[in-house]
Amino acid sequence: LHTRLPAVGTTVFSLMSALASEHGAVNLGQGFPDFACDPALLDHVDTAMRAGHNQYPMMTGVPALREAISAKIAALYGAQYNPASEITVTAGATQALTTAILCCVHPGDEVIVIEPAYDSYLPAITLAGGVPVPVAMQLGEQGYSVPWDRIAAAVTPRTRLIVINTPHNPTGSILRAPDLHALADIVRGSDILILSDEVYEHMVYDGAGHESVCRYPELAERSFVVSSFGKTYHVTGWKIGYVAAPASLMAEFRKVHQYNVFSVNTPMQHGLATYMADPAPYRDLPAFYQRKRDLFRDGLKGSRFTLLPADGTYFQCVKYEAISPILESDFAQWLTTDIKVAAIPVSAFYSQGRESGIVRFCFAKKDETLRLALERLARL
Amino acid sequence: LHTRLPAVGTTVFSLMSALASEHGAVNLGQGFPDFACDPALLDHVDTAMRAGHNQYPMMTGVPALREAISAKIAALYGAQYNPASEITVTAGATQALTTAILCCVHPGDEVIVIEPAYDSYLPAITLAGGVPVPVAMQLGEQGYSVPWDRIAAAVTPRTRLIVINTPHNPTGSILRAPDLHALADIVRGSDILILSDEVYEHMVYDGAGHESVCRYPELAERSFVVSSFGKTYHVTGWKIGYVAAPASLMAEFRKVHQYNVFSVNTPMQHGLATYMADPAPYRDLPAFYQRKRDLFRDGLKGSRFTLLPADGTYFQCVKYEAISPILESDFAQWLTTDIKVAAIPVSAFYSQGRESGIVRFCFAKKDETLRLALERLARL
Ligand SMILES: CSCCC(=O)C(=O)O
Ligand SMILES: CSCCC(=O)C(=O)O
Repeated sequence: LHTRLPAVGTTVFSLMSALASEHGAVNLGQGFPDFACDPALLDHVDTAMRAGHNQYPMMTGVPALREAISAKIAALYGAQYNPASEITVTAGATQALTTAILCCVHPGDEVIVIEPAYDSYLPAITLAGGVPVPVAMQLGEQGYSVPWDRIAAAVTPRTRLIVINTPHNPTGSILRAPDLHALADIVRGSDILILSDEVYEHMVYDGAGHESVCRYPELAERSFVVSSFGKTYHVTGWKIGYVAAPASLMAEFRKVHQYNVFSVNTPMQHGLATYMADPAPYRDLPAFYQRKRDLFRDGLKGSRFTLLPADGTYFQCVKYEAISPILESDFAQWLTTDIKVAAIPVSAFYSQGRESGIVRFCFAKKDETLRLALERLARL
Repeated sequence: LHTRLPAVGTTVFSLMSALASEHGAVNLGQGFPDFACDPALLDHVDTAMRAGHNQYPMMTGVPALREAISAKIAALYGAQYNPASEITVTAGATQALTTAILCCVHPGDEVIVIEPAYDSYLPAITLAGGVPVPVAMQLGEQGYSVPWDRIAAAVTPRTRLIVINTPHNPTGSILRAPDLHALADIVRGSDILILSDEVYEHMVYDGAGHESVCRYPELAERSFVVSSFGKTYHVTGWKIGYVAAPASLMAEFRKVHQYNVFSVNTPMQHGLATYMADPAPYRDLPAFYQRKRDLFRDGLKGSRFTLLPADGTYFQCVKYEAISPILESDFAQWLTTDIKVAAIPVSAFYSQGRESGIVRFCFAKKDETLRLALERLARL
């Protein structure tokens, strides 16, 4: 069978999670919490199941959930999305991203991807017949940043889509207002669309606000904005996310969505809709994770790791050049098998496997898990 | 935005369900039960959620569920599928079908589709850049049948895939051993693959066995076989299905699956795995639905509808030429708005909208729902 995706192997997250459990390592690799979600959320799902909400929901999502999403976006970012025509619930953010790419990228279209990049973007572009145009982030004293001049230089008449991600996985950097203005300058007057991966929208630290594309009408009018309940509510295994986009873009998204998954788990959608009535869980999330970030960073101070800034997401990137000169994937493997702390090599987020001597740790873990990992890392 | 799917509108199932609720019609259109699932299944899901099974499962599916699926296929069809490399859990059968098509159909490849056909096949083929080659079923005294000679004649050097569906939606016909042998004759010696949609595998009546492609090694070695828990366990809204295929095909399937949805709802997978230990629910399903089929058919005897055979699925097709000469979609609409019983026009399952004067009713409903529908239909 002639492959459609020649460059694709098993995702690094699966590989490192398997290696971690094989070697009894503390798993700071794949991004998921090791603590329980709010039991109230489980109660709401259970109530929905018992009430008989187990048959096909609307293709676009349960209306109450779409309304809750729309209300949240309005409250946080001051943007109006019509729940009937501009919000669709998806089987996780990955499905939202791939569906968005499949619905707008035609064979031969170019898609600008900022690297390091989440590893699903490129295969989705390839599947659509598109041509990925990777542009590398810059790594300076202040950490990673997007070189907008290089993005502008990468634009051609064939550019159909620019994929952005803020807060950014794996670097933990965030886009700020000047970044969004630079992006607006680039796309103004063109028919370039934007796919904005904002699954870590509620994990921005040190009082910075999340600069959602939704806040910028000039960008929002040409954007698919993707988010995830799994990250926000500590239920990564529920695989429920959503996309918000202007009606004309959403109409195309739904054509593909309808025949990709048709619709998304009914009782979980009802449970989430009820749970969303209370803004406290996502309002409290920055403080919750900032404390974990600080616990983890403080624990690494005095180690031979160099800490990169961690302004958002639940990831902490570290340079290990003072410890070893080896390749990132070898270092991550050695950390997992010998030091018993799993990490993700940042090289896995580059199409050409660029080496920067950096690995990524996930700090979405119980304090005791983080302390155990820190103890082990202190041996280095 | 230039569309990727020019032929696609809103699926007929969504349209008719919306029309049914708008007009207070009994909804015998979209295929889903209006009765509750087994509460034991809900208990198992609740137990899994409370036990903390809420984070990412393995990309391929929860191991216990893949093992249960493999054991079921072995018990029912005598075929061995390795749960590690030959079974993948999907976000519903639709996602399995679309992913299978996307992983093996290259731009320009031809895909033979037997019409009437479930409405997701064609858009998925189009999205892959493939060329759908529709072949119409024959409608004779004995109901619908597949004209294998015409399928053979449709094969070209570009044929990459043949999509079959048994029990068949919307016709309610089933493939029997001679059909499978005819298909084997056609593909023998070629590199044509088969996608077998068997979501109604447990709904075959009058003592006939389900002729799964899994029973035929010569076919199974080149087949993606798709099934659905939603249909079998009365939870169409859970959106969990699976695909079974030889390891070499599954490797390609998983490359696309990994970046389409990555993985599927964790607690529901655990709940289903536990529930599958008892074969009674699917073993008892033919008798359960055969009684409903007979109730519905008996109720229509003496009406001006002509009943087509209903050997499988939970659908009953009827000819209405004695009642009206109008188009199927107009008749289904009129039934819904005026008679207050929703049905699906079979023309919606043809790429060219062929008219046969036939609509489809779903009998997966409470007896009282079926009786109410029959009362209303008796007015005709
Ligand atoms: C879908 S598994 C990857 C989880 C994640 O977002 C990450 O670790 O980056
Ligand atoms: C995905 S909605 C369609 C349900 C169904 O299988 C049918 O009615 O044919």
